[in-house]
Amino acid sequence: MTDGNIMDFPLSRTGPLPGRPWRSSLGGVVDRLRQSREETHNIRHEGRIRHLPSAKAVAQVVEKLAAALFPTHYGDPTPNPDVIDDYVDYTLADALDGLTEQVLRDIRSASRDGEPEIAHAEAKADAIVTSFAETLPTIRNLIVSDLMAAFAGDPAATSYPEIMLGYPGMTAILHYRLARALYRLDATLVARLISQAAHAKTAIDIHPGAAIGDSFFIDHGTGVVIGETAIIGNRVRLYQAVTLGARSFAVDGDGRLVKGQPRHPIIEDDVVIYAGATVLGRITVGHHAVIGGNVWLTDDVPPHSSVTQARMRTSGA
Amino acid sequence: MTDGNIMDFPLSRTGPLPGRPWRSSLGGVVDRLRQSREETHNIRHEGRIRHLPSAKAVAQVVEKLAAALFPTHYGDPTPNPDVIDDYVDYTLADALDGLTEQVLRDIRSASRDGEPEIAHAEAKADAIVTSFAETLPTIRNLIVSDLMAAFAGDPAATSYPEIMLGYPGMTAILHYRLARALYRLDATLVARLISQAAHAKTAIDIHPGAAIGDSFFIDHGTGVVIGETAIIGNRVRLYQAVTLGARSFAVDGDGRLVKGQPRHPIIEDDVVIYAGATVLGRITVGHHAVIGGNVWLTDDVPPHSSVTQARMRTSGA
Amino acid sequence: MTDGNIMDFPLSRTGPLPGRPWRSSLGGVVDRLRQSREETHNIRHEGRIRHLPSAKAVAQVVEKLAAALFPTHYGDPTPNPDVIDDYVDYTLADALDGLTEQVLRDIRSASRDGEPEIAHAEAKADAIVTSFAETLPTIRNLIVSDLMAAFAGDPAATSYPEIMLGYPGMTAILHYRLARALYRLDATLVARLISQAAHAKTAIDIHPGAAIGDSFFIDHGTGVVIGETAIIGNRVRLYQAVTLGARSFAVDGDGRLVKGQPRHPIIEDDVVIYAGATVLGRITVGHHAVIGGNVWLTDDVPPHSSVTQARMRTSGA
Repeated sequence: MTDGNIMDFPLSRTGPLPGRPWRSSLGGVVDRLRQSREETHNIRHEGRIRHLPSAKAVAQVVEKLAAALFPTHYGDPTPNPDVIDDYVDYTLADALDGLTEQVLRDIRSASRDGEPEIAHAEAKADAIVTSFAETLPTIRNLIVSDLMAAFAGDPAATSYPEIMLGYPGMTAILHYRLARALYRLDATLVARLISQAAHAKTAIDIHPGAAIGDSFFIDHGTGVVIGETAIIGNRVRLYQAVTLGARSFAVDGDGRLVKGQPRHPIIEDDVVIYAGATVLGRITVGHHAVIGGNVWLTDDVPPHSSVTQARMRTSGA
Repeated sequence: MTDGNIMDFPLSRTGPLPGRPWRSSLGGVVDRLRQSREETHNIRHEGRIRHLPSAKAVAQVVEKLAAALFPTHYGDPTPNPDVIDDYVDYTLADALDGLTEQVLRDIRSASRDGEPEIAHAEAKADAIVTSFAETLPTIRNLIVSDLMAAFAGDPAATSYPEIMLGYPGMTAILHYRLARALYRLDATLVARLISQAAHAKTAIDIHPGAAIGDSFFIDHGTGVVIGETAIIGNRVRLYQAVTLGARSFAVDGDGRLVKGQPRHPIIEDDVVIYAGATVLGRITVGHHAVIGGNVWLTDDVPPHSSVTQARMRTSGA
Repeated sequence: MTDGNIMDFPLSRTGPLPGRPWRSSLGGVVDRLRQSREETHNIRHEGRIRHLPSAKAVAQVVEKLAAALFPTHYGDPTPNPDVIDDYVDYTLADALDGLTEQVLRDIRSASRDGEPEIAHAEAKADAIVTSFAETLPTIRNLIVSDLMAAFAGDPAATSYPEIMLGYPGMTAILHYRLARALYRLDATLVARLISQAAHAKTAIDIHPGAAIGDSFFIDHGTGVVIGETAIIGNRVRLYQAVTLGARSFAVDGDGRLVKGQPRHPIIEDDVVIYAGATVLGRITVGHHAVIGGNVWLTDDVPPHSSVTQARMRTSGA
């Protein structure tokens, strides 16, 4: 299964347009590129290449999962009502099949040669995908809570389909919910590629390491960044360009960054954070707090408080 | 016409790769997904499903409309000069045909069963598309005014083709001008999907409810948000990450948001708003005003004034 | 070669769905669109149309170049180890062939009729592409330095493949390095279309006129804007929504903008600029300086200094 889309290259040795003048210098360029690969970033190990997950394949898996979860909104084409269960069954199996291949690549590319998990990679991939499939109904319910929150929180929203089809925040959250489940099952690179697919579509960047409660709404959303160790409660609402980021990074004895330390904010239930606010470090924003637009915040905020930016100067007229 | 791309599913009952271990648990997942659909978000009505507009189809319609309006810039491939009118005629008919289908879906999915407009949906869709086609030459002239404004307003712009092909702001405004015309003709969901197509390409988010004058220029543009009820005059220039947003939302007696109330700024003629400024609420920014970078503005600004941010602190060295 | 993808139109005079009611009014719309083209923006010259570069074709060239530079990361499908040089050779020739066509269109569309370079356009395009190919190994080494900088600078980064496949900043920098080389060889419109392809994927906007040193890292990156005349040293790190922009524009005696004047910041080695900072004008940010989040900066900053935003007001609780 895993070698299905590896290209045995070339079928023919004739390249395109051999007549161009630059053609004769290509041999030297190819040699220098090989040297560059060998010196700097060669991931070939013992004659065996590790096939990395494919960003394109992962994006297709997400589209199929979305269609299986919400067939009337994301099915393409829309299935007829009397065959919907068959459609969901088929689309889900198709999605999970593609996912298994990508998770397997994730496992294999992350392992060191000779480590025991290589031998059990297929079984591990199947186990991850089985667990993931079991969580899909719960994920669907969470996404529906997000949908309800968007409708309740945005006066411009006129219908659920408008939100499902047209809101970047909804697209980003759907990707996040799927990525999060895979991240918790240790398919971390596949999870990151799902985040990245969402970022490419929406300009919203949610790390799958972040933990986010139900009824989450991001309005507009361009530029939102939610870091790896952020924790977000229920019914939180964010606007565009909000950053939940790190303030400083722990460094080890050799001056290298310590990976994975808690360094992003904790946002409690029912918080609203307006456009452009930057919230940094392992601080806590208490429940029901309101953070104003463009605020730069690095200290704890008590529950029910509100934080606004310093006044502007107006001149002229 | 409307059932053209509905899938009669399945052609075959055999799913992909039935041998995977997770295959046996799919039946239960499919059952739980059906329950979730039935409980939370079932848009099936009286045995008839409503086919929603397709974001992908709407995006294709926009590409064809752009090619019909600017065949040498957006035609793919570029038509030869002596057949340009034929090309425009064919491409326009193709675009409007696709649009008719999507507008019809918009009308049908928005109506309640048994309401009179269902019966007249096809006639209504045709009427909307006919009116829309009539406005296209006017829309083209507006887009040309935007193009001129970009060339005049950006020292980095070296040619019109560079702006047409390479400026995200131009892409966003072209989408907006088309979406706006459809929004005014009540094809609101299709209009929103056009906005969303622009957002996915440019990270610029302009609600088709906003009214924008001629010669509009958005430089760079990432993160720009223009809300549903904003009103923008002629010759206005915005930079990246400018928000024209709402400050607070009207609530009805049951605590629910009132939809569609005027709540976004009025920007008069010849205003410039620099990067990152956040302008909130139904305030008026007077003509020829200049709003500085990163300003957070919630009060009226008189004509010809300028608003800048409070000073920074510098330390160290 | 250059007329390869010009459409001889139409093969048939029958448009789609002639039965729609709006079909009869199309003739008038087509006439008015022709008038609009003739009045406002006609790039037909002496009966010969200039075929502009294609944004889609340019994006495909970049994908092939990326695959040739990093076959195990960006090859699609991944080539087997024992044929990697053949794969690189073929993919590179394919990419450069497409690039030659686009550079030729760039040269031709930029020239005035009868100017001498029209006659030599093919030779000039070949010369540009030959020089470009020679720089590819150097470009690859620079991109590897950027990759190392990302791994060293982000505690959330767990592997090189994660960065290569999943980091928008990496995608944007790869596009920039290629665009920059073409820009210096005078293929400026093609270079801009590469920037625009990066912006569409990442919401990061780097003008190919900017000069950027090695080991450059943009974390998250949404909303980053780097202007045409910016100069950035080695080992610089930027976060999302940082603007390196212009403050004011030089105007000539007729009130028109002077194009190409130095007007963007100089950022020296080892500077860090945090999320949302706006740095404007031809100022110098000294080496090892740290610019805080959301700062708006229009004055020089000495080496080793740090700049932070004015305090916020907290109320309530």
